[in-house]
Amino acid sequence: MEPENGVAAELSHLVPNGTVLNDGPSLEKYSHDEAQWAPFAAPLAVVLARTTQEVAAVVRYAGERGIHVVPRGAGTGLSGGANSMENSIVISLELMTAIREINSADGFAVAEAGVINDSLRQTVAAQGLWYPPDPASYKTSTIGGNAATNAGGICCVKYGVTRDYVLGLTVVLADGEIAHLGRRTAKGVTGYDLTSLMIGSEGTLGIITEVTVKLLPLSGREDRAIIGYFPSLRAAGHAIAAVKAAGIVPSALELIDSTCLRAVDNWLHLGLPENVNVMLLASVDEPGSTGELLANRLASIFLTHGGSHIEQATDPKKTEKLFLARRMAYPALERLGQILTEDICVPRSAVPDMLSRIEASAAKYDVVIANIAHAGDGNLHPQIIVPHGDVASKARAKLAFDEIVTDCRLLGGTVTGEHGVGLLKLSGAAAELGQRVIDMHQSVKNALDPNGTLNPGKAFPHTHRN
Amino acid sequence: MEPENGVAAELSHLVPNGTVLNDGPSLEKYSHDEAQWAPFAAPLAVVLARTTQEVAAVVRYAGERGIHVVPRGAGTGLSGGANSMENSIVISLELMTAIREINSADGFAVAEAGVINDSLRQTVAAQGLWYPPDPASYKTSTIGGNAATNAGGICCVKYGVTRDYVLGLTVVLADGEIAHLGRRTAKGVTGYDLTSLMIGSEGTLGIITEVTVKLLPLSGREDRAIIGYFPSLRAAGHAIAAVKAAGIVPSALELIDSTCLRAVDNWLHLGLPENVNVMLLASVDEPGSTGELLANRLASIFLTHGGSHIEQATDPKKTEKLFLARRMAYPALERLGQILTEDICVPRSAVPDMLSRIEASAAKYDVVIANIAHAGDGNLHPQIIVPHGDVASKARAKLAFDEIVTDCRLLGGTVTGEHGVGLLKLSGAAAELGQRVIDMHQSVKNALDPNGTLNPGKAFPHTHRN
Repeated sequence: MEPENGVAAELSHLVPNGTVLNDGPSLEKYSHDEAQWAPFAAPLAVVLARTTQEVAAVVRYAGERGIHVVPRGAGTGLSGGANSMENSIVISLELMTAIREINSADGFAVAEAGVINDSLRQTVAAQGLWYPPDPASYKTSTIGGNAATNAGGICCVKYGVTRDYVLGLTVVLADGEIAHLGRRTAKGVTGYDLTSLMIGSEGTLGIITEVTVKLLPLSGREDRAIIGYFPSLRAAGHAIAAVKAAGIVPSALELIDSTCLRAVDNWLHLGLPENVNVMLLASVDEPGSTGELLANRLASIFLTHGGSHIEQATDPKKTEKLFLARRMAYPALERLGQILTEDICVPRSAVPDMLSRIEASAAKYDVVIANIAHAGDGNLHPQIIVPHGDVASKARAKLAFDEIVTDCRLLGGTVTGEHGVGLLKLSGAAAELGQRVIDMHQSVKNALDPNGTLNPGKAFPHTHRN
Repeated sequence: MEPENGVAAELSHLVPNGTVLNDGPSLEKYSHDEAQWAPFAAPLAVVLARTTQEVAAVVRYAGERGIHVVPRGAGTGLSGGANSMENSIVISLELMTAIREINSADGFAVAEAGVINDSLRQTVAAQGLWYPPDPASYKTSTIGGNAATNAGGICCVKYGVTRDYVLGLTVVLADGEIAHLGRRTAKGVTGYDLTSLMIGSEGTLGIITEVTVKLLPLSGREDRAIIGYFPSLRAAGHAIAAVKAAGIVPSALELIDSTCLRAVDNWLHLGLPENVNVMLLASVDEPGSTGELLANRLASIFLTHGGSHIEQATDPKKTEKLFLARRMAYPALERLGQILTEDICVPRSAVPDMLSRIEASAAKYDVVIANIAHAGDGNLHPQIIVPHGDVASKARAKLAFDEIVTDCRLLGGTVTGEHGVGLLKLSGAAAELGQRVIDMHQSVKNALDPNGTLNPGKAFPHTHRN
């Protein structure tokens, strides 16, 4: 029996209700998230856990044997945070899909880590409640993964990110013990905010198995979409700044550039206007005449800043149609080649400059870069597209990626707005954090995971081990 | 020369621009915050620092000599987080009052720790920007103290707490090094959320010297106040639950009980109605007809649940008058005796039950307990009033205090909603957190302050030192 099989067999005893996989295709499937550009290696085994206790048993087992544990939700991450490595067990939370409680009186829900974001969203909506965070992956990503990466999304510009909605967590710690962090109340300041510390830590400090989230009332909002097309990235950038200057907080403010528009139109034949360069897509959700007024003001700002083909929609079907180009941009680009997805966030006022720099990087390194952006947040997702099999182009893409990260820092930005450091942003994070703050990370990591069991090497640059 | 004088003299060399105090009245003045119920001792000296570098120099000096450092803003804390102890230097940040940057394009400001909340608020308002967090102490408390305690306030029910507005921090660490945490962008997930970890840690992990806060547009809101009087705490509790059930998120929802109302009226002769037991005070800030509609719905909910003398106001002067009883409640109660201020937070639906239990504790221990509450958040501030010099009553007050904390836990609450653990809530926090989570706190504390220099014994129950 190979050592791997030995591990799998032992794990099967530990997780009688879970599933242990160690066949080749499974090991391959679970060896990485959507960041294939980052390094990965096949795990020793994959455990599909069904309970917090099973996760705890596996972590304890791994810790005792010096094996690493790589936790994973749906594997939709884009930074390699769930990429497996040598001598690792992957623990997938995907089977832990119970929504354990929905409390409408107090406005919270308790969900196991494997609950799909959209499933939670729909289930609570049936009770008149709303879970705002809406990462692009909301139809497939899990609430545990959303918490572990502090996922963002389109509505962040008004409603904030995953961390803003997590009240409490159940976490399996590095020693296999189970901790309950946080609270169920609207407010609370008892002790350190270990809940926030866990959120976005990519499973390096503990494995999130259950999440208590704050919910808002579903009622009282009316969505209105406003779109417009602009002749240049710069013109769109000025329109975005003008929205901000007008004191309007839209519930979405997205940018899609001509490469994306053409890719979507060539694929789906939506009849998008020709001779336009950029689309801005906004929404407001204030009800009644307030929302109408805001939508009209947005449309007027778009017009003043060179916008054309401006449309508004309140009907959900028409709104969905206006947003279709945004939703289909990524799959449309994927048809053009392999994509290296960037995720930078600059101060909003630096968006036009940053977009110009991205254009310059594309020209300099002779790669196609399409732009999708949560423009209202300054959170840009340049998509570097490499023809399949073009090794030279792939190498140039990586250089462009690094230059964009460096430029974002020069403009006062952060190297990852919502995807996380994972493995792809380690060098950018090192430059951003500086040695003293990296040392603080390492101290906290050593304190909570002294043997380095949990997802080592992810989330922050490890320059040394004490 | 006494050792104290030696310390003061040495400190004077370290902080040429700051002020070092070691006269008796100053040592007394700086020996505690507003939690005189908690233990305190005179410090060796008080440093009024003027720069981050001076704070760093003092921390390094203290660390080398095994002296503790107790950081302090305006000393308005209510849990003893800034109470001095033996062998300590108090570092006050009150002279660090520069607002270093206001960036309206990107919606943030950078303020030194000693800037008064209201000063920041007014300065950014002049540029059309709004800093929401509004603790009751906003006219006197500092932004650094607000961050160190994660201060709440009235608008939290809609707009969240201090942590929700802090983007970044400059912090002096236990070794006297200076770290810059966080970012200036709207979003960011680079590394662990050490900013959130520092916020609410009461200076036990680092001393906050500068705060970067997110600002919202000031425009687009119109305040409308709605007040009503209720025959009982229970009736008011049901009105609060009905507001929540209606899906309305008010910008304030406060409760003031009859003890407070009578104390205010006896003092200021406002002509508050007789024969009423509780006042609810709500506001909404949606503009135009939306706000009008919401205000009318709130008034209607109040009426349905037994409310009387219902009034609305949009005029700022009239609004201020309606809120006067709320603002003057605490000073009015102070005229009646020494106050032990509670701060618990229960799930909103448990507010009526919790208020009943508070009434029962008042009866059981024969003490007067008045209630001021951020009722919409479930955050209650029972005020236990003890006649000056009544030692027996003071002892009973402490028993009532502890019983209220225990009851709040039984109802699923947290022992401190917004004031912090400090020294007053250590035993409650121990019960709430449990040993494993306390151990996590201790590990993090040991990691970031291995010698225990910074404000030891505060913020979480220290059961051991590794």
